[in-house]
Amino acid sequence: MVMIKAAVHGFGNIGRHVLDCLGTADDFECLGVVRRAASLGKDKSDLQGNAEFSSIEELAAKNGRPDVVILCGPSRLMPDEASVYLNKGYNTVDSFDIHGEIPALVRNLDEAARKAGRACITAAGWDPGTDSLFRAIFEAMAPVGTTFTNFGRGRSMGHSVAARAIPGVADAIAITIPIGGGRHSRLVYVLPEAAEASASVDSANRFAAIKQALAADPYFASDPLEVREVGSERELAQVADNSHGVLMERIGASGTASNQRLAFDMRIDNPALTAQVLVSSARAVLRLQPGCHTLIDVPPVFMLPGDRYDNIARLV
Amino acid sequence: MVMIKAAVHGFGNIGRHVLDCLGTADDFECLGVVRRAASLGKDKSDLQGNAEFSSIEELAAKNGRPDVVILCGPSRLMPDEASVYLNKGYNTVDSFDIHGEIPALVRNLDEAARKAGRACITAAGWDPGTDSLFRAIFEAMAPVGTTFTNFGRGRSMGHSVAARAIPGVADAIAITIPIGGGRHSRLVYVLPEAAEASASVDSANRFAAIKQALAADPYFASDPLEVREVGSERELAQVADNSHGVLMERIGASGTASNQRLAFDMRIDNPALTAQVLVSSARAVLRLQPGCHTLIDVPPVFMLPGDRYDNIARLV
Repeated sequence: MVMIKAAVHGFGNIGRHVLDCLGTADDFECLGVVRRAASLGKDKSDLQGNAEFSSIEELAAKNGRPDVVILCGPSRLMPDEASVYLNKGYNTVDSFDIHGEIPALVRNLDEAARKAGRACITAAGWDPGTDSLFRAIFEAMAPVGTTFTNFGRGRSMGHSVAARAIPGVADAIAITIPIGGGRHSRLVYVLPEAAEASASVDSANRFAAIKQALAADPYFASDPLEVREVGSERELAQVADNSHGVLMERIGASGTASNQRLAFDMRIDNPALTAQVLVSSARAVLRLQPGCHTLIDVPPVFMLPGDRYDNIARLV
Repeated sequence: MVMIKAAVHGFGNIGRHVLDCLGTADDFECLGVVRRAASLGKDKSDLQGNAEFSSIEELAAKNGRPDVVILCGPSRLMPDEASVYLNKGYNTVDSFDIHGEIPALVRNLDEAARKAGRACITAAGWDPGTDSLFRAIFEAMAPVGTTFTNFGRGRSMGHSVAARAIPGVADAIAITIPIGGGRHSRLVYVLPEAAEASASVDSANRFAAIKQALAADPYFASDPLEVREVGSERELAQVADNSHGVLMERIGASGTASNQRLAFDMRIDNPALTAQVLVSSARAVLRLQPGCHTLIDVPPVFMLPGDRYDNIARLV
């Protein structure tokens, strides 16, 4: 078997899980992790024996050029990082997750990728990502109808970040709870900033102000909201598990036949699934034409190891 | 909008539903139906105003060449019919459903299609078809694990045909009932052949012989079986609805994270869904390279009408 040589860029929660996925795949070889120079030497055991580097050039000089770079940094940085890697002649995959910005990102990366003669897959997580695939296939099966994507119960990264940005909040975790019809309520655990001892009489007022600011924030303004105060980081950690899920429901018509009912229900460890979709996409990207692709642009068989005819015999 | 010109080959249950699907799609124009000469002039109202022809040559001479021919005949005839159409320079789609013969069929049609510079999609129903897509995507999400495909409750065409072939059976309908773990029980309604009046004392024995033959048939031998006798075609028609369904369940691991739970649950009108997948595939086939494809070889966005970037903005 020809091994796929992969490098991991960024070593947060997703990057660690990507190493797990590469380690359990028979057809991948990990050439190393590229991370910020300031982080080098930390969390050695999390690296699972993989080498770390402060740049792709150092990694390539030591271990050779990877076939694909798996981008595991924050979404905000991904557009620039993907462009830089494509310009350097590397194929990339990323799990960019800011839905409204995806079409423009695809156009930009498509130009960079074609110019470099390389391919990339963007928005390759679970939503956007595999959920996008199910939404597309459901429409092909029943073109007239309505699809609801119900998230949760689980921790929302985007809403947690928004809650942390509220003045007076030291840390926060936002839980998304489905209430039907693709709508959600929010449960936010808030650790207020430590107050001066002399100001302790105001703690009730300070929490009320935080609640008011959260309720007015665009991330929370349109959904039912409950805010709970916690007293310590340790208490906050008690609600910081990675469990998440989706129930996607479509009811519609195939031709003139109504009452076609389609549902996709998943209950998962969130970063583990994102990492696995990235790794399966890293396999697919090597089989694609130059350009920028999303998962709905990718033949699903490209994501699987092994021979096409074997996969057809087993799965079709 | 450039309209896709389609022709329908075969006018049974699926062919009728394909006309419904073409009629409700904005981007398709139906050039007519090709059917056996012996059937011409029958079921005029079912044609929904479409012209009928006894050959594709007659259809093309009258209405022009279609971009794609949608094959709606029996699976047994599809391999030859697809080859003939490809050799004549037409793209085709079919819902061939004999699982074990699909890899060989793909190889054969691939050669014919490449030689003709045309594309075809085979096995484009729901199982094989969209179920194949879900099986593939589920493995990309959780590569280690087990998938169960639970069919029903609904009428099994293959098992009904097998039951009708038992000596002494005038007509039969076989219902597939899921019993968990991808296993099924069978409920078969049997209308025995009319006996001589003088032989009526033997009717219990004749039914017992049918039950015994069914239990020994390879289609039924390995599953729990119940056989019920009915007294008329009319009584049989009372259990001949098109309701069907699937519950596909995968439990597995993404990387080292176990307990990833994925499920696809659908409840549908069976021929309507098959017809809709055929029509969505007829859109996709025009966007594919020459060769023979199954649905797991097709980028899902190709099955949808409209601009790729609009679909990315809406679905990803």
